[in-house]
Amino acid sequence: MELFEEQLKDILWAEKALIKAIPKMISMTSSVDLNEALTEHLEQTHDQITRLAKIFNSIDKKPTTVKCDAMAGLISEASDMMDDCETGPQCDAGIISAAQKIEHYEIATYGTLREFAETLGLSDAEKLLLEILNEEKSADQKLTNIAVKMVNMNAAVKPA
Amino acid sequence: MELFEEQLKDILWAEKALIKAIPKMISMTSSVDLNEALTEHLEQTHDQITRLAKIFNSIDKKPTTVKCDAMAGLISEASDMMDDCETGPQCDAGIISAAQKIEHYEIATYGTLREFAETLGLSDAEKLLLEILNEEKSADQKLTNIAVKMVNMNAAVKPA
Repeated sequence: MELFEEQLKDILWAEKALIKAIPKMISMTSSVDLNEALTEHLEQTHDQITRLAKIFNSIDKKPTTVKCDAMAGLISEASDMMDDCETGPQCDAGIISAAQKIEHYEIATYGTLREFAETLGLSDAEKLLLEILNEEKSADQKLTNIAVKMVNMNAAVKPA
Repeated sequence: MELFEEQLKDILWAEKALIKAIPKMISMTSSVDLNEALTEHLEQTHDQITRLAKIFNSIDKKPTTVKCDAMAGLISEASDMMDDCETGPQCDAGIISAAQKIEHYEIATYGTLREFAETLGLSDAEKLLLEILNEEKSADQKLTNIAVKMVNMNAAVKPA
């Protein structure tokens, strides 16, 4: 249970940090698809924070956070990358890359949390965690689709 | 090309950092399966560093690194977690969780690098990156299998 709680606090910190970080990413996009995907994910992140609070409640705990060094590092890398680039396809590619690293961190964490919830017999928490896990996987897939579309467009305009 | 090089430097730093970090994780395991999986991945990481050097050579660059804040954060989180736990199933679960977060970071990065190599028409680099990407996915799957086996063993010894 201790590890489950620790990871819940870690991911709550991470999601709250993303609420502050995603708007900068959105403001730097030039691709409409990417802008829409990130905007949708920002809304989803608010919802996920609400569901995390429910999970804390389901184990009779107050939602608290503990700093997630990994997410802090991911956000700091994304921020440095954006400071060094000008809005355009190159910057979009960098944003997709940064966002996919963030998604993969979340996929790994929610995957673990879901397994812990199953082991601990916390079926309500497990259901909510599976919902969030599937949303993160779907967000990652959307970013891959946007990247592939950009690669194909790029290939189409390249000289043979 | 600039973003491709940046990410290569980032992941080379990350892999080198893992060479130093994985032995501590191995020394803390109690599960034989987990010990073997991490030991195998440590050997694979050495091989991957060699292949990354080949990729640098293929674009006429010397292999150099740039600090990867995200991997530094992931390793620091793993290290803090291990400092707080005693060898045993709970600690194994924490190590699997930390290792899967690391794998997911690598999967996202190599996925992006492979896409960049494709866009840039770097077929030799693309081939090597796909090899590494598949190894990382397979390492992640092995960790999931170990976690599921542990969950099932745990469920089997629980009172009904």
